[in-house]
Amino acid sequence: MARIVMKFGGTSMAGTERVRRVANIVRRQQAAGHEVAVVVSAMAGETDRLVNFCREANPVFDPAEYDVVVSSGEQVTAGLLALTLRALGCEARSWLGWQLPIRTFDSYSNAKIDSLDVEGLNASMAAGEIAVIPGFQGVSEEGRVTTMGRGGSDTTAVAIAAAIGAQRCDIYTDVDGVYTTDPRIVAKARKLKAVTYEEMLELASVGAKVLQTRSVGLAMKEGVRVQVLSSFIDDDATPADELPGTLIVDDSEMEEIRKAHGMERQVVTGIAHDKNEAKIILTRVPDKPGAVAHIFAPLAEASINVDMIIQNVGRDKGETDVTFTVPQNDLPRAQAILESKRDDIGYNRIITDNRIAKISVVGVGMKSHAGVAADMFRSLAERGINIQAISTSEIKVSVMIDEDETELAVRVLHTAYGLDASDEDA
Amino acid sequence: MARIVMKFGGTSMAGTERVRRVANIVRRQQAAGHEVAVVVSAMAGETDRLVNFCREANPVFDPAEYDVVVSSGEQVTAGLLALTLRALGCEARSWLGWQLPIRTFDSYSNAKIDSLDVEGLNASMAAGEIAVIPGFQGVSEEGRVTTMGRGGSDTTAVAIAAAIGAQRCDIYTDVDGVYTTDPRIVAKARKLKAVTYEEMLELASVGAKVLQTRSVGLAMKEGVRVQVLSSFIDDDATPADELPGTLIVDDSEMEEIRKAHGMERQVVTGIAHDKNEAKIILTRVPDKPGAVAHIFAPLAEASINVDMIIQNVGRDKGETDVTFTVPQNDLPRAQAILESKRDDIGYNRIITDNRIAKISVVGVGMKSHAGVAADMFRSLAERGINIQAISTSEIKVSVMIDEDETELAVRVLHTAYGLDASDEDA
Repeated sequence: MARIVMKFGGTSMAGTERVRRVANIVRRQQAAGHEVAVVVSAMAGETDRLVNFCREANPVFDPAEYDVVVSSGEQVTAGLLALTLRALGCEARSWLGWQLPIRTFDSYSNAKIDSLDVEGLNASMAAGEIAVIPGFQGVSEEGRVTTMGRGGSDTTAVAIAAAIGAQRCDIYTDVDGVYTTDPRIVAKARKLKAVTYEEMLELASVGAKVLQTRSVGLAMKEGVRVQVLSSFIDDDATPADELPGTLIVDDSEMEEIRKAHGMERQVVTGIAHDKNEAKIILTRVPDKPGAVAHIFAPLAEASINVDMIIQNVGRDKGETDVTFTVPQNDLPRAQAILESKRDDIGYNRIITDNRIAKISVVGVGMKSHAGVAADMFRSLAERGINIQAISTSEIKVSVMIDEDETELAVRVLHTAYGLDASDEDA
Repeated sequence: MARIVMKFGGTSMAGTERVRRVANIVRRQQAAGHEVAVVVSAMAGETDRLVNFCREANPVFDPAEYDVVVSSGEQVTAGLLALTLRALGCEARSWLGWQLPIRTFDSYSNAKIDSLDVEGLNASMAAGEIAVIPGFQGVSEEGRVTTMGRGGSDTTAVAIAAAIGAQRCDIYTDVDGVYTTDPRIVAKARKLKAVTYEEMLELASVGAKVLQTRSVGLAMKEGVRVQVLSSFIDDDATPADELPGTLIVDDSEMEEIRKAHGMERQVVTGIAHDKNEAKIILTRVPDKPGAVAHIFAPLAEASINVDMIIQNVGRDKGETDVTFTVPQNDLPRAQAILESKRDDIGYNRIITDNRIAKISVVGVGMKSHAGVAADMFRSLAERGINIQAISTSEIKVSVMIDEDETELAVRVLHTAYGLDASDEDA
């Protein structure tokens, strides 16, 4: 017997027929002897509908009341899943964010979990009740509803798993695991049996949108083992105790899994791409101390994430071009801020371009293996793909390229690093 | 300056455009110097949508989780109205049932208000904030969401008005007041300036569905002055301090209003009709002590309301026919129960008929005026309308007739009691 947290996303909860499917998957885990807590998202499309209502009601974003409105979507699915489980003969009850409670701090609409009280939950689960918890919601210090940002249900699930000491947190979604790259681009992409937290963080943050980044960070911090798997698998074909998805674990468990399955150690685990960035070039910025701070301080104040930064050598002495990327959504805001600071910064022109893509190769193997970046640049150069910028971390190398070359670059790198599935894998 | 509670029904809240209209009506009352609390229903159709989800999830009614699901509709409109008011420059915030809290007792899905904590609400209103409260919802002793039955938002509004000592509780709905009878049947029906609580109770319970009956009972008990008025009036045409709807008050204020407006004292205030009852006849029931208890005890246990009861003299000695009415919705259930008790009761046949109507004349004037019932029977007899059963209370006489004669009977009685609007009223 183990404790398991199961989380189901909006596609899995879209309509009472799908909720019944989810209830059957949950019942199956309970029947296998596990104590189960389930975290649910709102029905697909429902959060968007509620967000639109809020926009129509008030063009100025007003986070506290926004949270009251949008949190209702998960309240509905939590109640419906509890009802459905009870219809199947299971004991089940819902626990809303304020009922546990899940205490949060920081701002409304983007709250962070402060603490979780699971005394009641533990007792209920120990008595054989399935706990159904709406994701994405909590309660503020002043006792009002908070939400944790889009995709926050993943974080709820991981936090619950940590608090109740669950053996595993299973994230059911519309893909059946984490792949070496996007299978829509590379037919020979392979599903990974396991990745490390760090790899998952890099893969998530560069566009492999399987899990909310914050949930992976929390899982790493709390040591929660996470499995990503599909809610559309055939229930009866897989034994309840098998792990059909991708496990996200720490380095030492990764090593064990590798040995247990006789898997080779790969330098690169996966290739991610991200088309949601935009490039901004400020030309002829004075090349003197403090100039760059004038550019990035106001953007940081407006909570705009700046990613890749390059300073080109200027054509004229004492001047330089500064290039950097921001999320495409933030481009109009970033542009307005930079235009209002033109005098402070002292640039000549703003040039923007959202037809760029970021391609990243990710793998813990890089820590102990040199030359990954060099291989990447050479492989791309051989196919005539121009690199506009580069950024690196300990386990990742990213390049900025023309958006039109995204698919080509991903395929070239997938093959170059030996990630293509062999015919026997297929 | 006064305190006012304003309540808006589902039709008034159907969509963000209508919510904006409501926000303007609320703002106008605040601008007139009042402290305002607003109680809202879910968007028209939303509660039905949520109830259907629950039915699909679990064919067996499961009240606690049902409440979690259906209460979300009012949570959404409360948040949206707060957002809209803030967009108009008002200070406003929502207070969910568990936040005030509105403590309830008794069963889920049909909870009754036990107590209301309004300390925070009072402070917030005194500071100039408009309070927006979702109707229909509360919190149980064990800290779970409860709802108060369909139409429960009226009761929430009256309870809030009592708790904060409001001068008036304005119920905005899709009709502009309480009429002498249904204006769709009698073109010359007049809007009443005021009715007493007792009259409203009788009018509501016999089918003039303007207010939830329970809310009127609570208003009477707590002495809350209620006004029923339309949310679709032209805001700017009516001064904010005028009372365009129908006031529901106690007998002494009714008397004052009558005198102030030089209104004649009427014996009959209004005529109500109700087509939602069904008739059941059990033939040849043994005419002995305890026989009737065998019929009505099992129906009462199943919470089926029996209204009119008549015992006909039997054709054979020692036997009698028993006729009574139940709500049409409960007819199949009542029939099944009676059939299962056939041996205990010892009747011969069950005959059912849902093509009946109940017509009632209501008025506090009856208390001091004899002959109302006799006038009623004579007026109906003159037009050949057959009376199948009769029931009376201190301020009401009801008759059961053939459903096809409903409109005719209402018109005949409306004229007979001098309720038709004169040409100068029109």
